[in-house]
Amino acid sequence: MNFLLEADSSDPLYRRVRRAIEQAVARGQYRTTPLPSSRALAAELGVSRTTVNLAYQELITEGFIVSEPRVGYRVNADLLSRLDELGAPDPARVAGDGTVDWTAHLRERSTPGLPEVSKDYDWQRYPYPFIYGQVQASAFPVAAWNRALRTAMQQPHITYSLRDAGSADDPLLVDEICTSILPARGVRAEPEQVLVTAGAQHGLFLASQALLRRDELVAVENPGYPDASHIFARAGAKICPVDVDGSGLRVSDVPDDARIVFVTPSHQFPTNVSLGVARRAQLLDHVHANDTFVLEDDFDSELRYVGQPGPALRASGSERVIYIGSFSKFLAPGLRIGFVVAEAPLITQMRRDRRYSLRHLPGQVQRALALMIGSGDYHRTLRRHRSTLREKWHLMGQGVRSIRDKAFEPPTGGTSMWVPLPEGLDSDDVVRRAARRGLLIETGSTCFYDDRPDRHSYLRLGFAAIPLNRIEPGLHVLERVIRDSRPV
Amino acid sequence: MNFLLEADSSDPLYRRVRRAIEQAVARGQYRTTPLPSSRALAAELGVSRTTVNLAYQELITEGFIVSEPRVGYRVNADLLSRLDELGAPDPARVAGDGTVDWTAHLRERSTPGLPEVSKDYDWQRYPYPFIYGQVQASAFPVAAWNRALRTAMQQPHITYSLRDAGSADDPLLVDEICTSILPARGVRAEPEQVLVTAGAQHGLFLASQALLRRDELVAVENPGYPDASHIFARAGAKICPVDVDGSGLRVSDVPDDARIVFVTPSHQFPTNVSLGVARRAQLLDHVHANDTFVLEDDFDSELRYVGQPGPALRASGSERVIYIGSFSKFLAPGLRIGFVVAEAPLITQMRRDRRYSLRHLPGQVQRALALMIGSGDYHRTLRRHRSTLREKWHLMGQGVRSIRDKAFEPPTGGTSMWVPLPEGLDSDDVVRRAARRGLLIETGSTCFYDDRPDRHSYLRLGFAAIPLNRIEPGLHVLERVIRDSRPV
Repeated sequence: MNFLLEADSSDPLYRRVRRAIEQAVARGQYRTTPLPSSRALAAELGVSRTTVNLAYQELITEGFIVSEPRVGYRVNADLLSRLDELGAPDPARVAGDGTVDWTAHLRERSTPGLPEVSKDYDWQRYPYPFIYGQVQASAFPVAAWNRALRTAMQQPHITYSLRDAGSADDPLLVDEICTSILPARGVRAEPEQVLVTAGAQHGLFLASQALLRRDELVAVENPGYPDASHIFARAGAKICPVDVDGSGLRVSDVPDDARIVFVTPSHQFPTNVSLGVARRAQLLDHVHANDTFVLEDDFDSELRYVGQPGPALRASGSERVIYIGSFSKFLAPGLRIGFVVAEAPLITQMRRDRRYSLRHLPGQVQRALALMIGSGDYHRTLRRHRSTLREKWHLMGQGVRSIRDKAFEPPTGGTSMWVPLPEGLDSDDVVRRAARRGLLIETGSTCFYDDRPDRHSYLRLGFAAIPLNRIEPGLHVLERVIRDSRPV
Repeated sequence: MNFLLEADSSDPLYRRVRRAIEQAVARGQYRTTPLPSSRALAAELGVSRTTVNLAYQELITEGFIVSEPRVGYRVNADLLSRLDELGAPDPARVAGDGTVDWTAHLRERSTPGLPEVSKDYDWQRYPYPFIYGQVQASAFPVAAWNRALRTAMQQPHITYSLRDAGSADDPLLVDEICTSILPARGVRAEPEQVLVTAGAQHGLFLASQALLRRDELVAVENPGYPDASHIFARAGAKICPVDVDGSGLRVSDVPDDARIVFVTPSHQFPTNVSLGVARRAQLLDHVHANDTFVLEDDFDSELRYVGQPGPALRASGSERVIYIGSFSKFLAPGLRIGFVVAEAPLITQMRRDRRYSLRHLPGQVQRALALMIGSGDYHRTLRRHRSTLREKWHLMGQGVRSIRDKAFEPPTGGTSMWVPLPEGLDSDDVVRRAARRGLLIETGSTCFYDDRPDRHSYLRLGFAAIPLNRIEPGLHVLERVIRDSRPV
């Protein structure tokens, strides 16, 4: 029997006849011989000729078969080779036929006039990884985290770990953020003011997409966080760099029409200075007067080694402050989890935008983090982590004083130091020389907009990833690299 | 001592004086009395009067202090209350002052002329959850998954689990996708043709953002996957619904200028029919002739119960096919992990777009999935899962035949059945009545564009989430609900 009619009540009979024909061809029949006449096929299938004719007609319309005088119906010869491809793909054929001009097809992206930061993500192969933004695997609370993940896969939690939650976040995590994380920052929030994100950067992305219209201005810190500027530019905004001094962003230089002022008030990225109290008040007044917004990236405020961190700008209660929090800087950037606190209408829009991009963050990761905060493991780990980092911070400060400047006194928080180079040295050059001696450090130049004359005068030395006992020897190597570098 | 000068070599002296003044005020000093004269302060700090004057001048410019004739420098009274807010936030003050008109500020979003699907995500409280898109917790391979997560937190994997990977994916997962997942679909891919996403929907989002320009057409299946249309509309596209019949999308009705044709060829969403072989060839020819693209959502192709799934459209090797894969449908939607296969230039753009939104997917989840595929646990689970689903599929088919139509014969794959209602009944009405009897089912109407006359004629019965032994009693309840419903 060549033709098999499926039983399928929801589909007209001629469609099933049509599929029976297709399937016979797909099995390799009627490739060289004509298809049966409509009369013969009708008899074989026990259906009317009209039905068979309808099926043939549709297949002719779609180019699957052709009707030839005196021969009858034949499968379209051009199609047969296509069918073979579909049925048994040529394993050698990975790439396409090269007919697509991708440059014409891909949508253009705006750039902020900054280079892209390309880091060496295989930083472990360096003996002295003074890299920013990574963590030491040994500092991660593996046992506590595994326990939390395992619990998240038990009842009643497993439901939340596995489900499609639509646009919802894990209610337990949101609750822990409101009650156990935000109060330390002086911030009060209701659940509808919180959105869970894939890290701080995702919060910047969602806020930009919700608020920025083409060609609007965003004021950013100079030097500042380059990825943020890329995000704003991609949302269509123009970037207005505003200088940072020892009190943080020079708020007086922010233009009135900057729709968003992006700041990192706790430990400025990359200098680690804190935004001064006067500047904070001035900034809030500025956005209030101009009907604009502050985007506060509070990515590592817990990592302060002397005194207590001051409250966040959002602690003022101003609805013009959009607060971006992250768990990456102390737990691990690879977890990709953070949150945003803002007024409910903005959160609602960001939530809808997130729903139609990635729906929600992984349920198990959200639930495990909530369980870890709830059990106290989170804050225990944070305290231990902070005391390790404080040791590193001391060593770093001492080291930089001994190799660079006896008066060097770093800001009291963060996970990096912003070190000025001797006059005439070029930071990019020093970084390259250092890499050859096994030191992974970052040039400050990628954090500056072009027009700053001191763009090449700073190194950024991260100390979260490097083991404690590598800091001193690493800084000694750096000392030699600097000594051997010549002013350019 | 009222003023404390920090040692900080990288900042001009007057800035440190300025901060000393701010900090004194923040500590509560000089709120009612004037600040010291520049001469007195210079003496106290051991700096020059010029330096103190520079500091005062900057604070005046920023509105922090005012200079009053015959009194000297005073802290700006308006500012004092702000400082108090900043220093000690009012715990009762959660919301802002209501001065923001959010409707004016939020960027508008296009909608596709479809309602938003709002499901009941607390589906566990229904005795008969015939819901689509969720999984039964007992079907999830908890032990194997926990093992994989734990291994991902050991050396050498932990590095990949914790690191910030920039725009990179876990190389091990990409390798497993290329060697252990795609071959079953007939698809060959090199690592640079693969991007890991937060589920299939994220792949649709990234592809739309990369390819669609404002007002371009996207052809979608009608009935079809509404969230996809929301994603296309939000990318600026116009939606062109094209009818689906028993062979899938009616390709002849796709307009030539549809820049993207969105299809679900394995098991059409929501009808589960497979795209016929002739249609497949016709579709590939169509996009080739028109210099356009196919977006192939292959979300549950492994879930086929009779025969083998046919190869994916991407198996043709056409560079015009963008293949979207997902691990959600059989593992769990809550994991949020999937992938895209496409030509390298497109993948590169999507990777950059992802970098500036969420960087990458959680490292540990990627690594654990790779380990689970590599150990064979993935395919073992898939086989077990498929055989459970096959049992459910049989029961469902029998049940629908006995309550609806003796000739009902469902398509041979997927995790739902698309059931036509008796003439005159309204699916939304039946769904509401069913909910009151403990049945959670979905109306087919949300999958249709308005202009289809049969929009309210179908139910969608999912069977992945409901326990096997609830299927028969649940369908009996449904039978009574349908019998009691009157034609509207």
